Amino acid sequence: MDTLEHLNETLVARKGNDPSTSYVASLYQGGVNKIAQKVGEEATEVVLAAKDAASDADHKPALVAEVADLWFHSLVLLNHLGLGAHDVLEELQKRTGVSGHVEKANRAAD
Amino acid sequence: MDTLEHLNETLVARKGNDPSTSYVASLYQGGVNKIAQKVGEEATEVVLAAKDAASDADHKPALVAEVADLWFHSLVLLNHLGLGAHDVLEELQKRTGVSGHVEKANRAAD
Amino acid sequence: MDTLEHLNETLVARKGNDPSTSYVASLYQGGVNKIAQKVGEEATEVVLAAKDAASDADHKPALVAEVADLWFHSLVLLNHLGLGAHDVLEELQKRTGVSGHVEKANRAAD
Amino acid sequence: MDTLEHLNETLVARKGNDPSTSYVASLYQGGVNKIAQKVGEEATEVVLAAKDAASDADHKPALVAEVADLWFHSLVLLNHLGLGAHDVLEELQKRTGVSGHVEKANRAAD
Repeated sequence: MDTLEHLNETLVARKGNDPSTSYVASLYQGGVNKIAQKVGEEATEVVLAAKDAASDADHKPALVAEVADLWFHSLVLLNHLGLGAHDVLEELQKRTGVSGHVEKANRAAD
Repeated sequence: MDTLEHLNETLVARKGNDPSTSYVASLYQGGVNKIAQKVGEEATEVVLAAKDAASDADHKPALVAEVADLWFHSLVLLNHLGLGAHDVLEELQKRTGVSGHVEKANRAAD
Repeated sequence: MDTLEHLNETLVARKGNDPSTSYVASLYQGGVNKIAQKVGEEATEVVLAAKDAASDADHKPALVAEVADLWFHSLVLLNHLGLGAHDVLEELQKRTGVSGHVEKANRAAD
Repeated sequence: MDTLEHLNETLVARKGNDPSTSYVASLYQGGVNKIAQKVGEEATEVVLAAKDAASDADHKPALVAEVADLWFHSLVLLNHLGLGAHDVLEELQKRTGVSGHVEKANRAAD
């Protein structure tokens, strides 16, 4: 299972949790505006971290952390709306052209 | 291999390509500003698509496509700076993993 | 009259124009998503230009141009929704004005 | 004097203030990343408020407030880098074509 699908399972599991103790549950409770706001904020942090990483390699770990935050909050947004990591990964596989199934079929045909 | 690591391999392979025929190579050529600009644009498209999906389920596939665009351009940005999907997935595993251990310890303590 | 109110008048005047020849009319025709998308894009350009201007003063005119783009598209967004420069300037005056009174009261109390 | 130039004067005056008691001074102290981050956040809030205002007129005052926040933080960013409202207003006047000076000259010629 993909790392993001595994992470997605933990986000689904947070749906019933207490917003006062679970950060993810507090995001769900905030609704689409609160979660989308976080996606916008994290995107700006990625942009800033990328500029810093481009001029000083010491900032590269910070960029990795900001992209992780961006993907994490994207996943919360998807789950809030009844979607999940699987939908996006499937879309990306479709675009890459060589989906896992095609590869498997190709390998079987060798 | 994770879908994003597989996609990352195709992005690495685009590094030597002709910017006039490869979209990804044209992004690399544009540099950090051009790629970060795309990340910012796609994040705004995710925010707009999320609002539309929240009020009308017919917009859900468009949201999936916008998140795919956001993750895709994040990956191009990482690769432009010598990083990749693996770095972010490892970071997310660490975060999920730590809480996994904490959860396990908490359960054991019950 | 404030520069932005003057500019606002030209944006109001574009409301009946042909979208194929007027950029502003084409934004109105695109609707709230298209105009809001531009605001998000211009904000990212401001962020990038600010980073460049902070490390090299030669980029300062580019930052000024990007902030002008950001305010311009904000004004188009406001006008599309039946609002205008006057509403925002009044809001800013109220905020500045209140603190002005508070400051004056504080000085009087010394 | 334009409202934004007046506001700009108060932002210049905050330059020497104590960051622990002045919000604007705390932004200056945070540097370009902190201020640019706020511009990105406020832009996302404008996008969300515009969507809400487009579907329900009761949200229009909230949109005005968010645009005011966006312009305010843009001004702090400009001042942090030695620029100001005047630079952007001049740029917008140039684009509108009919600058105050030209208008005055036209009126004088009548």
